Amino acid sequence: MLSNTLTKLLQLKYPIIQAPMAGGITTTKLVTAVSSNGGLGMIGAGYMGPDQLRHQIKEIKQKDVHNFGVNLFVPNDFTVTDNDLRNANELLQPIRETLNTHTEQVELPTMDQMTKTFHEQIKVVLEERVPICSFTFAVPSKEDIATLKQQDIFTIGTATTVQEAMEVEHSGMDAVVLQGVEAGGHRGSFIDATEENGIGLMALIPQVVDTIEIPVIAAGGIMDGRGLAASLCLGAQGVQMGTAFLTTEESGAHDVHKEAILHTQENEIILTRSFSGKLAQGIKNDFTEQIKEHEDDLPAFPIQNTLTQSIRKAASQENNKEFMSLWSGQSPRLAKKQTVKNLMETIITQVNKIKRNE
Amino acid sequence: MLSNTLTKLLQLKYPIIQAPMAGGITTTKLVTAVSSNGGLGMIGAGYMGPDQLRHQIKEIKQKDVHNFGVNLFVPNDFTVTDNDLRNANELLQPIRETLNTHTEQVELPTMDQMTKTFHEQIKVVLEERVPICSFTFAVPSKEDIATLKQQDIFTIGTATTVQEAMEVEHSGMDAVVLQGVEAGGHRGSFIDATEENGIGLMALIPQVVDTIEIPVIAAGGIMDGRGLAASLCLGAQGVQMGTAFLTTEESGAHDVHKEAILHTQENEIILTRSFSGKLAQGIKNDFTEQIKEHEDDLPAFPIQNTLTQSIRKAASQENNKEFMSLWSGQSPRLAKKQTVKNLMETIITQVNKIKRNE
Repeated sequence: MLSNTLTKLLQLKYPIIQAPMAGGITTTKLVTAVSSNGGLGMIGAGYMGPDQLRHQIKEIKQKDVHNFGVNLFVPNDFTVTDNDLRNANELLQPIRETLNTHTEQVELPTMDQMTKTFHEQIKVVLEERVPICSFTFAVPSKEDIATLKQQDIFTIGTATTVQEAMEVEHSGMDAVVLQGVEAGGHRGSFIDATEENGIGLMALIPQVVDTIEIPVIAAGGIMDGRGLAASLCLGAQGVQMGTAFLTTEESGAHDVHKEAILHTQENEIILTRSFSGKLAQGIKNDFTEQIKEHEDDLPAFPIQNTLTQSIRKAASQENNKEFMSLWSGQSPRLAKKQTVKNLMETIITQVNKIKRNE
Repeated sequence: MLSNTLTKLLQLKYPIIQAPMAGGITTTKLVTAVSSNGGLGMIGAGYMGPDQLRHQIKEIKQKDVHNFGVNLFVPNDFTVTDNDLRNANELLQPIRETLNTHTEQVELPTMDQMTKTFHEQIKVVLEERVPICSFTFAVPSKEDIATLKQQDIFTIGTATTVQEAMEVEHSGMDAVVLQGVEAGGHRGSFIDATEENGIGLMALIPQVVDTIEIPVIAAGGIMDGRGLAASLCLGAQGVQMGTAFLTTEESGAHDVHKEAILHTQENEIILTRSFSGKLAQGIKNDFTEQIKEHEDDLPAFPIQNTLTQSIRKAASQENNKEFMSLWSGQSPRLAKKQTVKNLMETIITQVNKIKRNE
């Protein structure tokens, strides 16, 4: 049951991928623990510069872990007007003042700059011969995919609808992560990225596996062996789990973030554009509530993300969960404070138990 | 695998319940076909008067089918102002004119009247000794539940969050239908019924089964044996399927509705208040698009439902899918035109195949 085309292609003992959560969560400790326990550790490199990425890749290899992956954000073009910026800053200024963060002139990212970083990141992946590279927010160019595949790098796209999954397959990528409405963090939609309606994995997986041929990896709300077994029944070949790894001891998530997930309920998980300008799922707090009615007017990703950076940073330093982005999937009640080893063992024990009971 | 506490309690061969879709879909032909093929047929009696309900119950019994259920809408209190009505009518008037329906003075339902009908419906269920009765939109009073249980009627509530499932259990009901974001038709939320964020079954089922003890029935986007097997892995004891039965030959759904589902895609399924004033999921069309920006100002259920009645009726008569309520779950690509017998056999074959492959 746990051995299939995907595990063979990825050389994994178990079809379990640790979601590449960006922003300091996927420490070397986390990535190596996952890969050493039969799963696939992933570096969430979306916000990393090339040097930082190379440094972590080397660090992981030094721990004698060689089967792991990197996830990159494919840049999306955006427009932002001075008026958008003024409005957003007016909205954020009172919050910055409460948190005593200065309104230093932040340098706003440009599309050119993002594209340049993206290609530098790919160059690092190629040079360091990272075996697996996944992408979020769009499908990379055919050229980029061809270059990676020439070096036998396994490429994985991200999709939230059947149509997106078809585009991932069509691009030549080797597998697709299907992100259901249950998933925490940023939604990987790229055809209609502003659509708030999300599709649940129970509906999404079978419709996708009936349409495309590359292996499907299910992501969203999966926390244990029940979710893995269910995903396999629906036709997926593996799972990608974020929140379940976020609260492990090895994860680099802020303790306040971990504790927030361990003490929240599924009906406090909301979809918000407030932190980054892009739809993402996490725990409702003062920040998301204050920005809520202005969501439709916020600057696009990554501009809003840059504008809220000082707020998130100051809140983290003060252990103030009300102004941090507390990303979480829809299953926080299943989150546990545990080691990666324990999480992996529990999943496998549960899957075997489900198999026996049938 | 297919025999458990729920199948024993409901005296079913298979843990498959046909969703009680209201509004003429659950004909005697459909209900008897489901019950005769090992599942549980259900009458969607939400909009039925007591005489109509009694008539159908007797008709089903005459076909020598005795194991079936009835679903009732628990009345929700509502307020509506003259201003709300004026605004809604202004919005609907141009559509009525296009469809040549007269603006006859419709009688608006009152809470007293709805409560009276609800108790008359319960009286019919008791007198006719219908073995199973399920409820949507709220939890009935302890007295109503006690009366039904005294006559050994199996009671089922509907929930969309862990908290709602806990309330269903606390009310004394015997089982709960867990409705995921994937489900078509009206959402059964009753604690925060205006909340648009819905929880996917992959996240909802395990969190609920870890919290309550009564059997859980999964509903939403489940169309075949893969969905049934997955739901059982997640801890549910059975499934309730709507859209899959809606397109069967035996269902009373309008042919235009069936065809619309058979030719739509999962990304055309939207959440809308436009038809009834209550959140419901179905296929996007001209009506939902025209009303979209006014959704927050519509009168509550069932007032808006009454106001759109002549529009839906005229559109149905003209086979005009643009102004009909085309309820559908999030898996329309899996819908097939087939007999109930064929659907049931396919599900069981698939489940057995999944079991063997593991």
